[in-house]
Amino acid sequence: MAIQFSNRLKDFAPSEIGEILEVTQKPEIISFAGGLPAPELFPIEDVKQACKTVLENQGAAALQYSTTEGYIPLRKQICERMKALDMESPVEDVIITTGSQQALDLTGKIFLDEGDVVICESPTYLAAINAFKTYQCKFVEIPMDDEGMSMVELEKSLKEYPHAKFIYTIPDFQNPTGRTLSLERRKKIIALANQYDIPIVEDNPYGAVRFAGEMLPPIKHFDTEGRVIYLSTFSKIFSPGLRLGWIYAAPHYIQRYIFLKESTDLHSNIFSQMITAAYMEAVDIEGHIDKIKEVYKERRNLMVDCIEREFPKDIHYTTPEGGLFLWVELPPQIDTKELFYKALKNNVAFVPGAPFYPNGGHKNAFRLNYSNMSNEKILEGMKRLGDVLKEVLDA
Amino acid sequence: MAIQFSNRLKDFAPSEIGEILEVTQKPEIISFAGGLPAPELFPIEDVKQACKTVLENQGAAALQYSTTEGYIPLRKQICERMKALDMESPVEDVIITTGSQQALDLTGKIFLDEGDVVICESPTYLAAINAFKTYQCKFVEIPMDDEGMSMVELEKSLKEYPHAKFIYTIPDFQNPTGRTLSLERRKKIIALANQYDIPIVEDNPYGAVRFAGEMLPPIKHFDTEGRVIYLSTFSKIFSPGLRLGWIYAAPHYIQRYIFLKESTDLHSNIFSQMITAAYMEAVDIEGHIDKIKEVYKERRNLMVDCIEREFPKDIHYTTPEGGLFLWVELPPQIDTKELFYKALKNNVAFVPGAPFYPNGGHKNAFRLNYSNMSNEKILEGMKRLGDVLKEVLDA
Repeated sequence: MAIQFSNRLKDFAPSEIGEILEVTQKPEIISFAGGLPAPELFPIEDVKQACKTVLENQGAAALQYSTTEGYIPLRKQICERMKALDMESPVEDVIITTGSQQALDLTGKIFLDEGDVVICESPTYLAAINAFKTYQCKFVEIPMDDEGMSMVELEKSLKEYPHAKFIYTIPDFQNPTGRTLSLERRKKIIALANQYDIPIVEDNPYGAVRFAGEMLPPIKHFDTEGRVIYLSTFSKIFSPGLRLGWIYAAPHYIQRYIFLKESTDLHSNIFSQMITAAYMEAVDIEGHIDKIKEVYKERRNLMVDCIEREFPKDIHYTTPEGGLFLWVELPPQIDTKELFYKALKNNVAFVPGAPFYPNGGHKNAFRLNYSNMSNEKILEGMKRLGDVLKEVLDA
Repeated sequence: MAIQFSNRLKDFAPSEIGEILEVTQKPEIISFAGGLPAPELFPIEDVKQACKTVLENQGAAALQYSTTEGYIPLRKQICERMKALDMESPVEDVIITTGSQQALDLTGKIFLDEGDVVICESPTYLAAINAFKTYQCKFVEIPMDDEGMSMVELEKSLKEYPHAKFIYTIPDFQNPTGRTLSLERRKKIIALANQYDIPIVEDNPYGAVRFAGEMLPPIKHFDTEGRVIYLSTFSKIFSPGLRLGWIYAAPHYIQRYIFLKESTDLHSNIFSQMITAAYMEAVDIEGHIDKIKEVYKERRNLMVDCIEREFPKDIHYTTPEGGLFLWVELPPQIDTKELFYKALKNNVAFVPGAPFYPNGGHKNAFRLNYSNMSNEKILEGMKRLGDVLKEVLDA
């Protein structure tokens, strides 16, 4: 049979990262490779109560078809929470998505034709690369330092690619680096976007999980022209299994997101939207997030202590003020994919950095996740990883 | 601001059908326009029990990230149910989707580039048209009669469009017409697909809700070459609000669906997958479906009686043996969109038929939904509609 798939599948191959995550599943391996929240913090009892409340009070509506835009009480609660993050949004400008991943997919759908340019951080979020790639775009990577994307390099690229479709950025505790865009650069990026007339897609899944330093206003806060599309999610502050995220953007964007979301999955799971709304109605979610912050802070501290103690000295690493990840850069001659297989033999795992660079290269970095592992396992796993690194770097 | 959206949005306009459904929401209107299951039949108490079971036994896993393919126990239960429908599937060939709508979107993503041809029934499911259109395809419509798609016309089109990407068909109680593809034509369509080497996308959301006539094997049952992609859903037999559907297809398709689903929404809501599995474990879902069939049969019978009694004689209508819809064809001079606004004044609504024809035309038909309305309202609504029709047709 000669099946003619679409051009977007012409380079189809099983995902390398998928294979990597697969081999890290063995019970003897301590894996810092994944990106999962700490499951022991999920508010299971509160969710049970919320299910009961929803099914008793509005059971038929919770199980029926619903609207593409999402459940209004939940969208109102999102607007309330965003106020505390320096954003004032009318409820109409916020829609619910099936996780933040759907917001990324719809963003590709809305903006991208084959050959279009997306400007992004270097490195950037792997699943965003994959979502945008589906629409056959090109990526222009902007180098970062510990204050985030370089504004000098960004401006160069804006000049070089005047038809670029949007700037994609994760300003808070970026995946994979854990870096945060400085206040000054937040003001600069919106000024540049205004000057070069380009939308910004501000992906902010981690912002609410800041456990150190001072809260910075989102880029959206400085947006006077309705050009920032702000994406966020309940995955890091409540539950990823329920697949609920949201988009906050001006009507000229939102009406197109709604239009394309309708043909993509009609609407997001309404029962889960109602559960989340009932949970936030009944429980102080900020108190719950405080617990998450406390645990993640302790784990990050422990991981950083271990790096200081167990790793060779000629490496660079980030010390994130929130989120789930930190980033380690090794001398340029080290290929972290080879290192990955050595580490695996020592029963410890991480994600090699190369797949986070959409145009390839950069083989000498890796990502560590600290949110999903007990203190005990962090201590033991980092010792194992330190041994491998010493062996490789001293060789 | 000069926003450059993708070419797929160049004809963007608020959906006509959305506006139509919007105006039918007023409480004084009896609406046969929607396509909702009967909410009074949702097994709310059983779902409550299933939530409790899931959260008590596997709460952390229910709220955590999960796999793109879907929850294995649910996929096994789907295979069990499909056996009773004459399909033998290994669990690996079945994946969970975020409603059947996502399966349609992913089908477009997998197969379609700009200008590609999709062969479909005339008329066909509106939301499938919209999903495929997003990938900028063309539609070749195959006329139907009361035994479904014409095989003579299909073969003509297969000859005329040898590069068509797939045949899209809803063989059981089609939306919008309620028609069912005859057994003979099921054998013929797979023979033609084999001969002309083209995949078939068999969309079967309603097949399990057959309340009259004899069960026919799905087209997939006759598929010896792995070319039929079978789509179905829990929306009509359990709950649409949970957004759970599935795809059953050969590995060369399934691995690509998984690949693109991952970048589309990572995975479907795992809590809802576990609830559905726990429900099917605890309760006899076939008994539940029997109740749905009984109610829908009664409503269909009532609606058909009303048509016979209240409608003018020079119309054609279908008498579906299952599903949610029937289809009314008026003399060619009648424009059912104009009729819609007249009906609205008489506080009754339907969906005009034109949007179900991807290439336009065919203004003289409309769709009626009987699943979502009490007997009392069917009687009163059909009387109101009959009055409008008599006025228009006698004029």
